This record gives sequence, C-alpha cells and structure tokens, in this order.
Amino acid sequence: MDIASLLGIILGVVMIVFGIVFDKNTGVEFSKLFSFIDIPSVIITIGGSLTSTLSSSTLPNFLNGLKSIKLAFQGVKGDANETISNVIELSTIARKEGLLALEEAATNLEDEFLKKGIMLVVDGTDPELVRGIMETELVCVSERHGKVLDFWNKLSEMGPAWGMIGTLIGLINMLKGLDDPSTIGPSMSVALLTTLYGSLIANWLCGPVSAKLKANSATEIMLKEVTVEGLLSIQAGENPRVIEEKLKSFLAPSQRTKVNEREGEE
Amino acid sequence: MDIASLLGIILGVVMIVFGIVFDKNTGVEFSKLFSFIDIPSVIITIGGSLTSTLSSSTLPNFLNGLKSIKLAFQGVKGDANETISNVIELSTIARKEGLLALEEAATNLEDEFLKKGIMLVVDGTDPELVRGIMETELVCVSERHGKVLDFWNKLSEMGPAWGMIGTLIGLINMLKGLDDPSTIGPSMSVALLTTLYGSLIANWLCGPVSAKLKANSATEIMLKEVTVEGLLSIQAGENPRVIEEKLKSFLAPSQRTKVNEREGEE
Amino acid sequence: MDIASLLGIILGVVMIVFGIVFDKNTGVEFSKLFSFIDIPSVIITIGGSLTSTLSSSTLPNFLNGLKSIKLAFQGVKGDANETISNVIELSTIARKEGLLALEEAATNLEDEFLKKGIMLVVDGTDPELVRGIMETELVCVSERHGKVLDFWNKLSEMGPAWGMIGTLIGLINMLKGLDDPSTIGPSMSVALLTTLYGSLIANWLCGPVSAKLKANSATEIMLKEVTVEGLLSIQAGENPRVIEEKLKSFLAPSQRTKVNEREGEE
Amino acid sequence: MDIASLLGIILGVVMIVFGIVFDKNTGVEFSKLFSFIDIPSVIITIGGSLTSTLSSSTLPNFLNGLKSIKLAFQGVKGDANETISNVIELSTIARKEGLLALEEAATNLEDEFLKKGIMLVVDGTDPELVRGIMETELVCVSERHGKVLDFWNKLSEMGPAWGMIGTLIGLINMLKGLDDPSTIGPSMSVALLTTLYGSLIANWLCGPVSAKLKANSATEIMLKEVTVEGLLSIQAGENPRVIEEKLKSFLAPSQRTKVNEREGEE
Amino acid sequence: MDIASLLGIILGVVMIVFGIVFDKNTGVEFSKLFSFIDIPSVIITIGGSLTSTLSSSTLPNFLNGLKSIKLAFQGVKGDANETISNVIELSTIARKEGLLALEEAATNLEDEFLKKGIMLVVDGTDPELVRGIMETELVCVSERHGKVLDFWNKLSEMGPAWGMIGTLIGLINMLKGLDDPSTIGPSMSVALLTTLYGSLIANWLCGPVSAKLKANSATEIMLKEVTVEGLLSIQAGENPRVIEEKLKSFLAPSQRTKVNEREGEE
Repeated sequence: MDIASLLGIILGVVMIVFGIVFDKNTGVEFSKLFSFIDIPSVIITIGGSLTSTLSSSTLPNFLNGLKSIKLAFQGVKGDANETISNVIELSTIARKEGLLALEEAATNLEDEFLKKGIMLVVDGTDPELVRGIMETELVCVSERHGKVLDFWNKLSEMGPAWGMIGTLIGLINMLKGLDDPSTIGPSMSVALLTTLYGSLIANWLCGPVSAKLKANSATEIMLKEVTVEGLLSIQAGENPRVIEEKLKSFLAPSQRTKVNEREGEE
Repeated sequence: MDIASLLGIILGVVMIVFGIVFDKNTGVEFSKLFSFIDIPSVIITIGGSLTSTLSSSTLPNFLNGLKSIKLAFQGVKGDANETISNVIELSTIARKEGLLALEEAATNLEDEFLKKGIMLVVDGTDPELVRGIMETELVCVSERHGKVLDFWNKLSEMGPAWGMIGTLIGLINMLKGLDDPSTIGPSMSVALLTTLYGSLIANWLCGPVSAKLKANSATEIMLKEVTVEGLLSIQAGENPRVIEEKLKSFLAPSQRTKVNEREGEE
Repeated sequence: MDIASLLGIILGVVMIVFGIVFDKNTGVEFSKLFSFIDIPSVIITIGGSLTSTLSSSTLPNFLNGLKSIKLAFQGVKGDANETISNVIELSTIARKEGLLALEEAATNLEDEFLKKGIMLVVDGTDPELVRGIMETELVCVSERHGKVLDFWNKLSEMGPAWGMIGTLIGLINMLKGLDDPSTIGPSMSVALLTTLYGSLIANWLCGPVSAKLKANSATEIMLKEVTVEGLLSIQAGENPRVIEEKLKSFLAPSQRTKVNEREGEE
Repeated sequence: MDIASLLGIILGVVMIVFGIVFDKNTGVEFSKLFSFIDIPSVIITIGGSLTSTLSSSTLPNFLNGLKSIKLAFQGVKGDANETISNVIELSTIARKEGLLALEEAATNLEDEFLKKGIMLVVDGTDPELVRGIMETELVCVSERHGKVLDFWNKLSEMGPAWGMIGTLIGLINMLKGLDDPSTIGPSMSVALLTTLYGSLIANWLCGPVSAKLKANSATEIMLKEVTVEGLLSIQAGENPRVIEEKLKSFLAPSQRTKVNEREGEE
Repeated sequence: MDIASLLGIILGVVMIVFGIVFDKNTGVEFSKLFSFIDIPSVIITIGGSLTSTLSSSTLPNFLNGLKSIKLAFQGVKGDANETISNVIELSTIARKEGLLALEEAATNLEDEFLKKGIMLVVDGTDPELVRGIMETELVCVSERHGKVLDFWNKLSEMGPAWGMIGTLIGLINMLKGLDDPSTIGPSMSVALLTTLYGSLIANWLCGPVSAKLKANSATEIMLKEVTVEGLLSIQAGENPRVIEEKLKSFLAPSQRTKVNEREGEE
C-alpha cells in the first residue's frame, strides 16, 4: 500500500480548513467553516460533474470509474523484484527439468498473468501465438485502465465547469433582484462557493487521483512487458544468467541488489 | 441501448433547475426559472454556435452531425461476444465443410462487415487483397466517425465562444446607456445568460455527446479489427481452437466465460 | 461548390445583428448598430492581427494566405467518384491496348496530378521512382496547404489577443482620466468593442475558415493517395476488376453505387 | 532577406500607437503616449520574462537565443532552386568525369553542408556511413534550431505571466492603501500596464518571431534533406535526368520552370 | 556547473522586490515588502500545491522530486567532448591490443554507463544483447527523469490552482462579512496574495526548473545514445577513424575542433 495519496488528500483538507479559519488579526474561528458548507452548492457542483461524466460514458464504465478510487490508495499490484525473481526462478527450473516441470511451479504463482503465460508455454503453444495472446491481453489491460482514467479526467474537467455554471446561476439570481444592496456580499459569497468546490474537485481530489492511477497503470504495464519478455526467453530456452541480465536492466540500480539478495536467500 | 447518456443529460437538467429554484432562506421558487429563459439569448448562443459549426464544415457533414445525436443514446452496434462467437462458428464450418460452405452460413449474418469479408474469402480473393480491402473499409469508417466527432467538438467549442460574444454585446449595450443605475443589475443578469447557455452547451450536452461517440467509435473499430483478424485466420485455415484463443484475449476476463457458455449452448 | 461556409458566415452576421438590435422590452432598434461600429477599434484589432500574422510569415506566404479565403467557399477540387472512375477506365485501356495507349487517353484528363503520373508510367519510369515522385509531390501539396492553414490559425489566434490589447489600451486610457464618472460607461463599452471584434475574428470567421480548409485539404490528399495507388496498380498490370474493388473501398457505401452507375453509362 | 517580419513588427507599433493616441471625440493626442510608458513596469515585465527564460536554460543557450532575433529578419539560408541546380550540375560532372572530379567542383560551393557531403563521397566513404553522418548532422542542426525556438517560446509564454504578476503586485499595493479614492483609477491604470506589456511581448514580438524561425527551420531542414537525397543518388551513379526528376518534385510547380531556365543558361 | 538557473532565480527575486518597493512618485519604500508576506497565504499556496503533488505520486517519487531541485543548478553529468574522446580512445586500444585490453582501460573511467558497456563487451556478450541491455538501461534512465519532471510539472500546475483556491476562500470570507467598507481593500489585497504566490511558484520557480531539467535530461540521454553507438562500433571492430567521424557529427561544429585538440594532446 502506498500512503502518498491518502496523506496528500488528508493534508489537503487540513490546508483548506486552515485557510478558512485562520485570520492574522482575529485568530482561529472555526465557526467560519459553516459559511463554506452550502448543501445546494455541493449538489449542483458534484452532482453536475457526475451527471456530465455519466453522459460521457456507459453505465458499466461509469460504475467502474466510481469504484476505482480505492485503486489510487493501493499500491501497484505486483512488484518488479518479485516478478523478475519469479521469471528467473522459472527459467532455472525450465533449464534443469524441462518446460513441462513449469506446470507444477506455476501453481504457486499469485500473478495470474504470468501463470497464464506459463500454461501457454507448457501447452507447447507456438511462440508467435504466445506473444500475440499475451500482447493482446496487455493491450486490453491498458484499455481498461484507459477507461478508468477517462472517468477521472472527465470528472476533473467537469468540476470547474459546473462550478462556473453554479456561480453564473448564483450571479444571475442575485443581479435580477438587486433590491437590497446589503445582500450583495453574502449572495456573491454563496455564488463563489461552487467555483471553489469545482476547483477543489479538480485540484485536490480528481486531478491527483487521475495522475496516480496513470502512473500505477504505467508501472503495471511495464511489469507485464517484463513478464512477456521473460516468458519468451524461457520458451526459447535461453540461459537463465542471460535472462537475468536482460531483465535486471529494467530495474533502477538501487533495486538490483535486492534481486541479488532475494536470489541469494533462495 | 445504453441508458447512461440519456440519464446523465436528464439528471443534468434536474441539477440546473434545482440550482436555480432552490434557496436556503426562501425555499423553492419555480418562478425564478422564467428569468433564466431568454429567447434572444438562446438564439444568439445556439444559433451562433450552429452557424460557426456550419461554416467549418460542408452541408452534408453538418446534417450528418446533427442527425448523429441519436447515436449517443444508442449502444454500440455489434457486440464483442457475438462477433467472436460468429467468427469461431464460421471457422468450424470452414474447417469441416470447406471455405465454400461459408457462403450459406454468411447469409444469416446481420453484421454487414463480416458478411462482406466472408464473401471475399468465398470468392477466393488473395489474402493480401482481403486484408487491404477490409482495412481500407475500416479506415473509411473511422474517417466517417471522425467527421461526426468534429461536428460535436466544434459545437462544444463554439458554445462558450458565442456565449461570450453574447455577453459582450449585452455589456456594451448596457454600458452605452448607463442612465438609470437601477437597470444595471437586471441588464447584466441578462448579459450573463448567454455565457451560462454557452457553458451548458459545452459541458452539459455537446462535450459528453462527443466523448460518448468517441468511445463508441473506438469500440466499433476494435470489433471490426477483431473481425478482420478472424477472417484472415479462417482463410489461412487455422485451427478453430487457436482462433478462439487468439480472439478471446480481446475480451475482458469477465466476458470470456460468456463466450464459452454461448458456445456450450450451441 | 459547397454552400456551407458562405451560408454559415452570412447567418453568423444575422445572429450578431439580431443580438445587438433586439431587446425584449424596447423592441428592435437598428440605431444600436452604430455603437458597435468603431473604426479605430476595427483598425487596431484587424490591423494588429494581420501585422502579427505578417511577422510570423514570409511575404509570399502571407499573400497566399489572404488569397486562400476563396478556397473555403469552393468545394474540394476533384471528386472521389470521378477520380476512381478515371483510374478504372485507364486500367481497362492499359489492359486491352497496352501502357502506351494511355498517353492518348491521358490528354483528355483535367486532373493534372493523374496526368503527370500517367506520363511517368507511359515513359516507362521505374515503379519505385514513380511512387517516389508522386509521393514527394503529395508531401509538397500537403506542405503548401499547411502554410495556408498556418495563416488562418495564426489570424484566429491573434484576433482575441489584439482584441485584449485594444481593451487594455482603452481601459488604461479611461482609468488615467477618471474625472467625469458619467463617461465611464461609454468609455468601457468602447474598450470592450475590440474584445468583441477579436472574438468574432476567431469564432465567426477565421476558425471556421481554417477548419474548412483543413477538411478540404484532407479530402484532396486522400484523393491523390487513391490516384497513386491506382497508378501503381495500372503499371503493375493488375486486373481492372481488382483495382476497382480496391479503390471502391475508399468510398462511403452510399457513393459506391454511383461509381457503378457511371461505369454502366460508359 | 525577407521583409515580412520587420514590416509586421513596425506596422504593429503603428497600430499600438494609433490605438493609444486616437480618440473619435478629442482627436489625436500624442501626449497620451507618456502614460503608456512606465519604466518600472517595463523592468518587471521584460526583466521578469528574461530571468525566467534564463533559469529555464543554460547560459550559452540563453545568449544564442537572444542573438537569434536577427535570424527572423533574414531569409532562409540557401535556396531550393540553387541547391537543386547545384546537385544536378554535380551529378552531371560525376557522370561525365567520375566521382573524383567532384572535388574540384565542390571548392566553389558556398553551401558547407553540400561541400562536406561531396568530400565524403570523393573520399570513397561507404554510402551507409555517408547517409549516417549527414543525417546525424541534420538531427543536430534541427536540435540547435529547437533550442532557439525554446528560447522564444519560453519568452512568449513568460511575457503574459510576468505581466499578470506585475498587475497583481500593483493591485495589492493599491488595495492595501485605499485611502484616497481619487487615486484608484490612475493606480489601476499603471497596474494594468504590465499586463499590456506582457501581452505585447507574446503577440507582437516573441510569438511571431518564434513562428517565423520555426518556418525558416523547416525550410532549411527540407533543403538539407533534398541535398542528402541528391548526394546519395550521385554516389549511386544514378542518371542526372532521373535525379533531376526526383528533386524537382520537391519544388512547387511555379518554381520548377525557374530551375529549367537556370539550367538552360548554364 | 551551470550558473543560468541560479542567476535567473535570484534576478527574478530582484525583479519582484523592485516591482513591489519602487514607486515613481514616492520612491523606494522597503516597508511595502511586509504587506506581501503573509504566512497563512504562504501555507495554503505552497502547502496545498505540495499536498496535491504528493497525492499524485508515491512517497519515494515525491521525495526524489523534492531532492531533484539541486539538479537544476548543476550542469549535465558528463560532457559530449569527453564521452566521444573516451570512446575513440577505447576504440584505438581495442584495435591495437584486442577487446580484452579494454578491461584495464575501463577501470579509470568515471562514466558508469560506459564502464558497464565495456564490461559487457569484454565478457564477450552477444552484440544484440549488449544493445538490448544498454537500451533498456537508457529507457529506465529516461523514465526516472520523467518521474522527476512529472513532480515539477505537477507542482507548477498546482501553484496557480491553489493560489486561486486561496483567493476564493479569501473573497468568500470577505464578502460574507461586508460590514465595514473600509476593510474591503486590505482584505482583497490579502486574498490576491495567494494568486500572486501561485503565479510565482509556476513562473518564477517550478516552470523554469522543469524546463531546465527536461533539457538536461535530453542532453544526458543523447550522450548515452552516442556511447551505445560507439560501444557497438568498437565491438564490431570498426576503424577508429570511422568511429570518430560518426561520433563527431553529433557535436556542433564549434565543438569539433575541441575534440581534435584533446586528441592532439593525448
């Protein structure tokens, strides 16, 4: 699990609350928070953004998008060191005991993608077809991620748009009935709330979630590419040392020793 | 049919009406809605956006664009499971009864694209030429979709632009005759209406329609690509099992069992 | 000729005039139009946009850009059906009477690009060289179009920029001499005029012209690509039926019958 | 030399001055110009933009960027007709008198790039290596141009940014001391000056210079590509007629006759 | 070390301070600086930007991002002249004394990347594998740089966003309690401070740092590409003269003589 997004979002709230309640002259006044919570403004900004995101999508993709927020708070599934160690271990088994021995070894793997690939190799599938199937799978994973990203990008784009729509509605209502000048200030302050909410949707929540999911997706895809490379090398009967050398160059220098240590343990 | 866009657009209207009529202090006042409907403002914003979209295009493309709104409320033509099942079924027939037997099987197909491909295969067309013709068709479909997307993107871009033009005209008219200060408020409120309309055109209607059509187009193109892959495999006389394995990797894991079930039924 | 751009631009003017002169309370007042025409504002906005576009370019490219506005009101040169029919007809001649017979047939062609290609084929030029020369020509046409598009894009971008410059100059002048409060309104209204003009340059005129020219250019390039494909097929002595099948997939289904009819007539 | 940029920039100044001094009611008043010149505003806008551009770059690249403004007022180095004529002439010499005869012919060339290529050919360098070396050179020229463009793009982007910073500083200073309402107007007018300057930096000067340099760079690169194509054809001993045909398709139709004339003269 | 970024950032501060304290009428007043320093505004703008950047990233990438600011003030690691001289020298050794002699020569190299490559060559690794490993390493370096750039780009984007959030909070607070008109000016001036801070984060600090790091990264990658080219040429046993000719075309003409001089010294 990666703490950064959760921490960032919580600290963001702290910043906003601090900005609202703190005043150099009058000190901290928590009661000011109440004037920043306006249920109708919340409904129009968040509701509007969600409805526009809904109409940009299909129902299943929209619901997947909503659910995906938890992915931003989880780390990437899988781990480069583990993936590479697994592939190297499997290549050693294949070298020593033949490709068929991989079947048993694969049953313990948690990584479904690697498992599927091993099964194709064990079945004696043509290397070109193994590559084809695995890469199509990769493309599909990447498309699935893309749909989730589309959800967050759209929401992030719609937040400020509906914030502005809310502010325009508030301003028009206010200007229509300019009877009592003393109400201008409070009315405008309420009108501006939706702009604030929209800006927060984009910059405090959805923008960062989208950026995080995009980075996670890139890492996951990279891991899967390493797996495909490794699988094809195993099938081609390459030397485990050479496979290791090839795969380790995917890691940052600092991570390479870890793989060595892990292997030493085994 | 996919309900998301229709639902999203209707819920969007609910949000806007709610934002206009609801007031924490005075409660719901539906009469306020009247001050948000201004026919001249509607004409200049919607009319202006449409005229600029018209001049960016040719008459046939413009009319096609207008008509395409219904596509956003329909689901994608075709269905991955069905397409793949069809291709697998055809490959079994071809394997058992020869390529010529496909002619009869193809007559029941609803998918015109697959039908045309089968006909080319039955006619004994050269595989390279089959691929060439099918891919040119694909490119042309994608270009036709692109023109429809251009229409919605342009409209979505022109909405806020003409909204601002309307507001500028309103402001200039108002500032010219600043005789009676009591009219400033209402005049400005009318001037701001076009900005509101423009923003709604872009964010409530046209942006989502464009995003939806783009996603639908991508799915349709993907289905056609799967079809071309499958057709060429059939022509090459590949094993139906291998074809199935290849094509199934185009589906999300959850959809794969469905294909299996469908096939079991048959 | 395609009516869309001309119609769109004229209807745009109607919208603007309507927005200016119509008022729900006081009715239509054409005299208001006068306060929207301010020669110095016109000079600074249009003049400024043109000078910035001039300095972004060379003198010949700038003049070509100015002249190209008429292209937006013309349709695309050439027509897919005609081009394809011509190529198919030429391929039949080449098949029946040999490549040399093309020379006579080519003299009647209006399409200079096709004519040049036929001449190269008749001269017995190496197919690779024919492709090379024709494609370089294509690239050059596309670059020439690109320069014209650059002109309109730049003008479209500079309009609002100089509109804002004009408004800033007006505001600064006004704020400098705030002696008589009664002049604020009219002064600001004049200052805002340049912003309005700039917005119209971009959204009513130059943006649409640029979009139209870009679409026309894409169609023209596509036609030329079809021609090159056809020429090389003729030179390779391919069967006219196969050439027809190949080229027809470039057309939308609705247009295909037209080619068939045309050929039937011949 | 190309007059367009110089003319455009000078006419731009004329537009700005006209916009400032002309008033429909009071006529031309050149004294107004003084209120548009404010040294501190100039320093913060231009100085700030330059410092941000400096920190985005290295010292040598920054200085090269500054110096490159003169390139916008020069035409492109080299000329398509001349380059092509030279290559054709050299190919005739090579054909008639052998590759070694090129050495003498090359000594008169002003085009260093062509000269270097000829020298490589005369030295009997391997064609692959000639292409490799010439293309690396091309890439390096294009990278050098890229750095100069980065300078102007950054400056063009930083102008409005620092203009806004200056205006914010002016507004904050003004709002802090709102003692005398009569000073609001003039203070705001000064605050807005930096926004005006920033806008002019971007739209009157740096944007056009950047666009011009980019177009010049594209032409220069294209000329060098033509040269490389020609050189390799000469080395391959291709027929001068064929080389001419190949290279002439790089020219616009109107320019082709000029090459013919030039050659006729020779 | 490259002085440009440090100089630019310091001169930027000078510009800002000058803009604040200088007034044509009242002269320099350093006390004005105090009204531009507001700790709560600093906290909300900088804190908010950092928290959003944190939630867009993982904890290790965020901390690496923070640390990377010093890289903007350092020059690029490595130097084209030195790299090329090293490769040429190594190629001469390899030619004269055989590939194995490179092992000793490599021990003195400071460039880890070149050293690793030489070791692979000395170990008799297959050329394809050498290229594969070195290029994977290159891609990984480039990805690492990309993550650092993401940090600065995000921070640069979030600065103005949180500046606007701060200003909205300030405006809403101010409008809520419009009791005393005399406080409007100072309150608005404080509200605008966060917008100023955000603008400075983006344009004075983070934008330039990001641009600088991007340029440095491009140079470093280019150097590594030159190294890989050189290594493979050495392994292929190419003539040192040819290698030199190849590699020198990566340098600007002005730098080439330096390499010659360096070599002359040796």
